[in-house]
Amino acid sequence: MSKRVINFYAGPAALPLPALERAQAELVDFENTGMSVMEISHRAKEYDAVHNEAIALVKELLGVPDNFKVLLLQGGGNLQFAMLPMNILHSGRKADYIITGQWAEKAYKEAKLVAGDAVRVIASTKEEKYCRLPRPEEIKVNRDAAYVHLCSNNTIFGTQWKEFPETGGIPLACDMSSDFMWRPFDVAPFGLIYAGAQKNLGPSGLVVAIIRDDFLALCSDKLPSMLQYRIHADKNSLFNTPPCFSIYILRNVLAYNKSIGGLDAIYKNNLRKGELLYGCIDRYPAFYRGHVTVPADRSLMNVDFFLPSDELTDAFVKEAKALGMVGLKGYRDLGGIRVSMYNAVTVAQVETLVTFMESFAKKHA
Amino acid sequence: MSKRVINFYAGPAALPLPALERAQAELVDFENTGMSVMEISHRAKEYDAVHNEAIALVKELLGVPDNFKVLLLQGGGNLQFAMLPMNILHSGRKADYIITGQWAEKAYKEAKLVAGDAVRVIASTKEEKYCRLPRPEEIKVNRDAAYVHLCSNNTIFGTQWKEFPETGGIPLACDMSSDFMWRPFDVAPFGLIYAGAQKNLGPSGLVVAIIRDDFLALCSDKLPSMLQYRIHADKNSLFNTPPCFSIYILRNVLAYNKSIGGLDAIYKNNLRKGELLYGCIDRYPAFYRGHVTVPADRSLMNVDFFLPSDELTDAFVKEAKALGMVGLKGYRDLGGIRVSMYNAVTVAQVETLVTFMESFAKKHA
Repeated sequence: MSKRVINFYAGPAALPLPALERAQAELVDFENTGMSVMEISHRAKEYDAVHNEAIALVKELLGVPDNFKVLLLQGGGNLQFAMLPMNILHSGRKADYIITGQWAEKAYKEAKLVAGDAVRVIASTKEEKYCRLPRPEEIKVNRDAAYVHLCSNNTIFGTQWKEFPETGGIPLACDMSSDFMWRPFDVAPFGLIYAGAQKNLGPSGLVVAIIRDDFLALCSDKLPSMLQYRIHADKNSLFNTPPCFSIYILRNVLAYNKSIGGLDAIYKNNLRKGELLYGCIDRYPAFYRGHVTVPADRSLMNVDFFLPSDELTDAFVKEAKALGMVGLKGYRDLGGIRVSMYNAVTVAQVETLVTFMESFAKKHA
Repeated sequence: MSKRVINFYAGPAALPLPALERAQAELVDFENTGMSVMEISHRAKEYDAVHNEAIALVKELLGVPDNFKVLLLQGGGNLQFAMLPMNILHSGRKADYIITGQWAEKAYKEAKLVAGDAVRVIASTKEEKYCRLPRPEEIKVNRDAAYVHLCSNNTIFGTQWKEFPETGGIPLACDMSSDFMWRPFDVAPFGLIYAGAQKNLGPSGLVVAIIRDDFLALCSDKLPSMLQYRIHADKNSLFNTPPCFSIYILRNVLAYNKSIGGLDAIYKNNLRKGELLYGCIDRYPAFYRGHVTVPADRSLMNVDFFLPSDELTDAFVKEAKALGMVGLKGYRDLGGIRVSMYNAVTVAQVETLVTFMESFAKKHA
């Protein structure tokens, strides 16, 4: 029997063990086909069932309305940063970007490269090192914007939108790579949602996107085929060979999530994990200094904090590792500690971390 | 113990069982990390070793010269169809395309979409339903071409280039998705080689590309980041989160290929498989009618043939399936039978097929 660690990596990240064990059990013989799911034609009925179940589970768990399509794409969030403006920002259309961190900024830069001055920054907290989200009164949406882009959770700086900005009916376009399906939410205001799978959903190399029909109707049909949302939507994400194994793992993860009570149960767990970890940080404000200054903006997925010295930071990482907890070193540009606790990280695992943090603080404070 | 079938799918396709069993054994605990390889940060040293080993094995097995970079990309051959002209066909550059099947034609159409009249067809066998390759005297390379594009193996119609066309020094750009690493070959004349992994290499969702330094130097730096070969080359294919698990399986497949004697041994097996299968077809020319008319052009990867009637075709597929052989139904646009026998299909498996074909022909001819 293998010894599993407590995995706090920011992505690729922890996946539910039952979803992995299911894959392991049938890795060389998927459902008595005598083949691995990796070896089956993407046109075969056995794969088709997996593909459609993965899509159906996204719809079911999130309650996606019928006027949306779920797409399974490749190229990570980075390719979406370009595909979105390439598809939408033709015919003189413009877009607004809200900058709350490195990924939101990358999305903006790629859009700028594609569409130049048609792309505008309407709010940014960069000068404050992304330690908070813009307040509602700081966000002035242009009435001529075809969409307002934002990144729902900041993996690096540790902020997360709990309420999405009001746009007066202009579609939101959102990079949800690091918190997609962390809770139930209303999909209706979004023209496009996209998420790299490697945080909450499955292996890297797969992007789950949700696009609204009226937003899809705006998309260019002059682009290379692989870059057209329209083609992927028309072909049920089988225009070309999709990343079948990653989609299969997505299916396993979502089926497991459903079995434990769906997004309501997952949200409850995530709230509890946040209470535990931020509770501990708040009990030792002089020892564990959080990066995010506005409590309501603190992310339930990625939690950044700093210890009083680099020596203590190193000792923290080392001692935690000895206790079976990995992935705690902060992002290279920010330093400190980062705890990523996506859906697959359990309440019990966060309790273990908090117990360690309590004792570490008492010893060194 | 699972019962494995004989897998003749055209892709996703058979992979070497030892490569899959290696993955199965450590699926929830990769090299005593206590994590699946899917759950490990792409910046962690454990993943980095896999990533670099996969790249090193491509170089070693193929003898890739030092003036080439090996890239690990996403989006399948289809995205390469667009990325190649987007990167190269700026500044008034032109390109020549040789059309020998559906994939070569798709590559041409995507390039046309990107670069219009800069893209020219210099040879095509479409009017003959792709039943042969163009003869050397039918291929007139334009002296101003930045590259000559071709598809090395025709998955659908069953032709395969054994000798690549002479271009007088103009770089070849080649889609090798369905026969990459089926034998040793000289990489030097190629500016770019690309291959979707899902035939000879690993799971779908991964593309292996090899690009020559002087060809790389021609590439645009004005494109969205994910579409720039230059960025992927500069970042050792870690610009964004790569498809880590697919790369891990690629590593397993290539390590296994090395262990059985590398590409020389694999080529010998592939030649033997061809002798066996084409030998049988040629013994029953009235019963098994091959699609390809020029014997030298016949593919050792995908073998198309027709039986005298649809009823016999259906019976062939059904009886073969009862004997544990799957994936034999011909491509939808062509009909008949297609036998795909990539590297992982063994000589013994083709012997089993040929034994069946002999008895089927004797019974029904």
